[in-house]
Formats: sequence, C-alpha cells, structure tokens
Amino acid sequence: MEQEMITSIHNPQIKRLHQLLNRKGREASGTFLVEGVHLVEEALQSGAAVKTVIYDMDRGIDPACEASLRVYDRPLKRIAVTEQVLAKLSETKSPQGIVAEVSQHSVDWQAWKQKYEQAGSAFVVLMLDELQDPGNLGTIIRTAEAAGIDGIVVGENSVDLYNGKVLRATMGAIFRLPLFRLPLPAACEELGAMGTRLLVTSVHDGSVAYDEPVYDGRIAIVIGNEGRGVSPEISRLATTHVHIPLYGAAESLNAAVACGIMLYEARRQRKE
Amino acid sequence: MEQEMITSIHNPQIKRLHQLLNRKGREASGTFLVEGVHLVEEALQSGAAVKTVIYDMDRGIDPACEASLRVYDRPLKRIAVTEQVLAKLSETKSPQGIVAEVSQHSVDWQAWKQKYEQAGSAFVVLMLDELQDPGNLGTIIRTAEAAGIDGIVVGENSVDLYNGKVLRATMGAIFRLPLFRLPLPAACEELGAMGTRLLVTSVHDGSVAYDEPVYDGRIAIVIGNEGRGVSPEISRLATTHVHIPLYGAAESLNAAVACGIMLYEARRQRKE
Repeated sequence: MEQEMITSIHNPQIKRLHQLLNRKGREASGTFLVEGVHLVEEALQSGAAVKTVIYDMDRGIDPACEASLRVYDRPLKRIAVTEQVLAKLSETKSPQGIVAEVSQHSVDWQAWKQKYEQAGSAFVVLMLDELQDPGNLGTIIRTAEAAGIDGIVVGENSVDLYNGKVLRATMGAIFRLPLFRLPLPAACEELGAMGTRLLVTSVHDGSVAYDEPVYDGRIAIVIGNEGRGVSPEISRLATTHVHIPLYGAAESLNAAVACGIMLYEARRQRKE
Repeated sequence: MEQEMITSIHNPQIKRLHQLLNRKGREASGTFLVEGVHLVEEALQSGAAVKTVIYDMDRGIDPACEASLRVYDRPLKRIAVTEQVLAKLSETKSPQGIVAEVSQHSVDWQAWKQKYEQAGSAFVVLMLDELQDPGNLGTIIRTAEAAGIDGIVVGENSVDLYNGKVLRATMGAIFRLPLFRLPLPAACEELGAMGTRLLVTSVHDGSVAYDEPVYDGRIAIVIGNEGRGVSPEISRLATTHVHIPLYGAAESLNAAVACGIMLYEARRQRKE
C-alpha cells in the first residue's frame, strides 16, 4: 500500500481533492469524497472503488477502519495529513479525522437490464425525478436499500448524488445499491419495453390509493420533486397514477416518508 | 387591532421577542415565534392563539396573510418594523418579511382522555421518546397529521417542540394536532389504564413484524431516539414489540420514515 505524508494545503494533490467538494470537480474526475469513520468503513466493506484514504496524522486511523483497510484487496493510497489539511477536505464542523476518495458508482445499466431479461424475473425499480433536497435524496436511497429495492434511477435534474449531505444521509446504502444516472424519459421507455409498469405518485383525481394491488411483476415507482411533484413529461408515461391518502388539513407528505410508505407497501404485497 | 411601529433593535419588545429564539426564553414566556408567510397563515387559519404579528414595513403584509388576519377573531397586535429589526427575530438566511408570536399549544390532556372515555371510542396515539433531530421531529408531526393520528405525546427528553426547524418541518401540522408534552412513563400508564396497547418499535428478536394485525382498538405507537431507539424504561412497558424488516445491509431506517410506514400501516388496517 502506497503511503505518503502531506503537510501543506497548497500541495497539488490536496488542491485536486479539494475540488471534489463541488459538483463540477466531481464530474471532471469521476470520483467523490466520503467523510468520517462510518462512511469510509462502509465504502471499504462494500467493495466500492476506494482510491485514496486521507487521515489526520496525529489521530491515526480508527481501528475499525484499519481492520477494513487490511482486508481491502485493491490498490489504494494512504495519505497522512495535518489537521489543517484535513479541514480543507471536510464539509463538517467537527471533522472525524478521515476522508476517502472513491470512484463514482457505476453498475452498467445495459448489463443490469440483461440480467433480469435473461432470468425472466420481476423487480422493483425506484425512479427519482428532480429531487432537490440532499437530505431527502440520501434518506430515499437508505430507505430503498432497507425495502429491498432492485435498482434506483436518478434523473439528470436531481441534486448531485455525490453531494456530501446526500452521502451522509444514505448511511452507506449508496455503495451497495445499483444506482443509475440516466435521462428519465429514455429509462422509462426502456423499462416499458421490458413490460415494466410505471407507477407515478400523484395527487390526481382518478389515481388509485397506494395500498391497492398494483405492485406485482416488474414495476418502476416514480417519486417527484418536493414541491412540484413528478414532471408532466414523466407523468404522461404513467401506467398507473398512485396517491397516498392524506387526512386532516395535511397538504402533502415529505418525499422520503412518502417513498418509504410506498416501497414498504410494495414489499408487503410482493411477499404475500 | 392594535398597531405599532418599531425601528430599533434595542426596543424592549424586540428584545423580549428575540429571547423566544431560544428554548429558555420560550419556556419563560409560554409563547414561540413562527416565521414566514406560509407558517403565519397556517397559525392564523388553524385558530392558534396568535398574539403578535411583526412585519417588514417596507414590504408590507403578504395579501394571503392579510386576508387571514382580517378574519382572525382574537385580539392581536401588529408591529411594523425595519428590515434590520425583523432580521433580529429571524433564524433563516432570507427572512420572508413576517414573524408571529404564538401561544404554546395546549390541548388539555385530561380533557382529551375524557373525550375518548365518554365516547368509548378507539384511537391511535403517537409517543415520541427522546427524539433529537428537529427535522425528524417536525416531519413526524407532519406525517402524523397526514395519517390521521388522534394525538401525539412528546416526552420530556425530546428536542424542543417550538424550535424553528421543528416548526418549519411540521408544515403547520403543529397548530392542528393535539400535542402533549408529558413524562412518557406516566402517560403510558394513564393510557394503559384506558385499555391502550403500547406498541414499541424495536429490533428485538421476538418482536412482531409491523404488518401483523396489531393496530386495532386503542393503541399508542412509540418511536424512539434516532440512535438508541426507545429507552429501556418505556420498552419495559410495551404490550407488543414491533419491527420493520430490513433488507440488504441496511441497519436502520430514518426515524420519520419508520414512523410513516407504521402509521400508514395502522391506518390501512383500521379501515379494513
């Protein structure tokens, strides 16, 4: 394992890593930063492509992370840095002493589809249309893993998947789920060609209640923007519009909560 | 309607209102501040005891708020202030030009219980045990209203109900739901004496899955702390321990998402 020491925030490697704190830098490099013992461990343990681990030389590496590093079987560089250098790569108020650079997740979409086509098997896909709140997006990814969802398609107009707030809210699920960033209309058509029914959350009259039996076979559940809901372009492609009934004077549910209710209802019906 | 104008942040009324931005000040006065057109309107329309409306004199009062003010039938003071004074009463980066002082919500607990005793009717109560994240607490209150829950008991060790982040996340539900701040063990006993079954969320072996038929009659659903879950003291009082199954490597669900899944399952079963 390569090992280095860096004490200056002007070091070109640190400058490069610092650029990963914004979306443009992440898109240019195809990597992102994760921060904190828990997330770094999750990345190492789930087999994500961790390229570099940067840690506070005075604090050393947390024993749990060290154990995960020892069994990690891909090339990886360690950089010991000063507290000040680490702060340069941190988005949180109390840095946890460790940051890792990870390659952006990339399960191949065509290969994913082929797997299901060849097996002739059912699936539940979650599609996210213009989600804007990083906490919501991350919590939805976390919830999707817990509900046993088979894949997530994130549309191009959603908040960046590799934003630090998204990553923290996923609690590591981002390293383990098949996640695709695709233009949603094309993804809807491709899934439709596989016999997938598109369930679009809505408040439309004429939509069916979320607890009706609509979740069998191949389905894609679309969750829309926090304020505007699912875009008209995607809404038009729906096989079925689905709503969650609201009692009292409530006007809506939080997007992550609504998503959890629907995904678990799908799961409940599919095991029956 | 009383009308005043204040241009100095040193004005004693502004100093008093400013203290409502922290818990101690709110507890001393028994009131709290809500900020923004939407929440002020929700407060006025739901019949909350709004005492004072403070607004930016240059921007005037939003027409929707003005309409709600005209039909509001309790004594209320209006204070026109400068932008700088309003900023002193604001917690957000872009103040929306209006803030209101509202009396803390107080449905009487004994009266609430009597109502159900006399009617001999069923109910679903939500109990919150040491919730720490304001966004979670607010989202849970919002979700509880949407699910048609009959009352919420917030334990004494939870984050303050009248914290600005909690209020914003409730989307106004806080003005409309019967909310009680009580020591949880005593509330559990009082509800138990009414034949209420206590469903405690847990990850215990031997707990039943959340979609088993456990939601009829009078029930109280307990949601615990984000990290530690329900406290041992309350857990011991459980009639039934309930868990939400987790797939993949997921270790837990977000507290508000878990709450939404259980409350909507309760609702689904109760309408059958």
